[in-house]
Amino acid sequence: MPDQHIVSAFDRDLESVQALVMKMGGLVEAAIVDASNALLNQDEELSAEVLKRDQAIDDLDELINEQCANVIALRAPAAVDLRVILSVMKISGNLERIGDYAKNMAKRNAVLVHMTQIEGARGALQRMAREVQLMLKDVLDAFIQRDVVSAQDVLERDRDVDQMYNALFREFLTFMMEDPRHITPCMHLHFIAKNTERMGDHVTSIAEQVIYVVSGSMPEEARPKATRYETE
Amino acid sequence: MPDQHIVSAFDRDLESVQALVMKMGGLVEAAIVDASNALLNQDEELSAEVLKRDQAIDDLDELINEQCANVIALRAPAAVDLRVILSVMKISGNLERIGDYAKNMAKRNAVLVHMTQIEGARGALQRMAREVQLMLKDVLDAFIQRDVVSAQDVLERDRDVDQMYNALFREFLTFMMEDPRHITPCMHLHFIAKNTERMGDHVTSIAEQVIYVVSGSMPEEARPKATRYETE
Repeated sequence: MPDQHIVSAFDRDLESVQALVMKMGGLVEAAIVDASNALLNQDEELSAEVLKRDQAIDDLDELINEQCANVIALRAPAAVDLRVILSVMKISGNLERIGDYAKNMAKRNAVLVHMTQIEGARGALQRMAREVQLMLKDVLDAFIQRDVVSAQDVLERDRDVDQMYNALFREFLTFMMEDPRHITPCMHLHFIAKNTERMGDHVTSIAEQVIYVVSGSMPEEARPKATRYETE
Repeated sequence: MPDQHIVSAFDRDLESVQALVMKMGGLVEAAIVDASNALLNQDEELSAEVLKRDQAIDDLDELINEQCANVIALRAPAAVDLRVILSVMKISGNLERIGDYAKNMAKRNAVLVHMTQIEGARGALQRMAREVQLMLKDVLDAFIQRDVVSAQDVLERDRDVDQMYNALFREFLTFMMEDPRHITPCMHLHFIAKNTERMGDHVTSIAEQVIYVVSGSMPEEARPKATRYETE
């Protein structure tokens, strides 16, 4: 079998699986935007829609995993090709998790609507979610373009999200101490803030995958384990 | 090349990488036990040790990922062999995450020592962590034995952990409403409870991988997406 044939068959498979990742990314972005808009506008209908649409994201994750396993079994990719396929599987997992956090935000909206309002919180959370959504958009473009510079930029922007979270955390504490009726809504709002910060962590994890795909090693400064998945 | 040779080379590689997973599992179990004992006994020294030891867990995760990629590239496994290797990578990721949660618990211990004590909370959290550690032990044994029945059992036990979390959540709310000085420590204790519940989610995710490895499909009832990674 000529080499050319094998290469292009793999490339075709890779393109098809990458298209699925981009489709999944689009759905996840929409989930973030809609969940945070639903929070801002106390829109219960939109929250319900976000909940319903999460299944499509989960189905895509499963499909991507299957297709990647098939590509590995069929094409036996090596070196950089294998790296890309393994990264696609990890990115799909990150997207699925971000989708779950958006879904969770939508769930909490439905509860929060009936509680004492906390001034300014919904606007701040919506801005935080908006920032994460933009980072997600940029990191997926960086993945398709194999653009390390842009991926590095996303890594750095995650610090802003962490800062937004920390500021909100302190604000919620103050609200809770002021009035016991604020405690329950603030617990939910705080969860939303924390989960949005975690979405940001998953976005940085995708950025690290981009760097790994291109360079063959994980970024030293932003080792996934040192910074990710730690609460606070 | 005779088939026999290929099979046993893969099996040897698989055994070596599975041994690393078991080693990693042992370190993660120790982290859970020590972090929760440190919480119970307000032991700052033990907390510091848990923090320090997390690096070894992260290093093992990286090593396992590398070795799995090498096995795929070298042996080009298909069907069930490929399924096992891909599962090993996912399980390693789950273990790494559980380790991070244990580390985070240890970090919060250091803060909590200097705060108003919340009656009974540390004991309850330690019992919850103990349950998760036992589930982790059993699910890793189930993985090595390819024991679906035992994996299914772990899936069911996760409900107890969720119930423990829900009970604690309500308790913390009561404490916070009682006295504003309880708010900050309860926020930290609540995080520990939530993170322990999330450890349980990662353990169930490993259980699902065991079922996937043996049966070739994810368990229908306990779809990872429907139940995992959702906060509450």
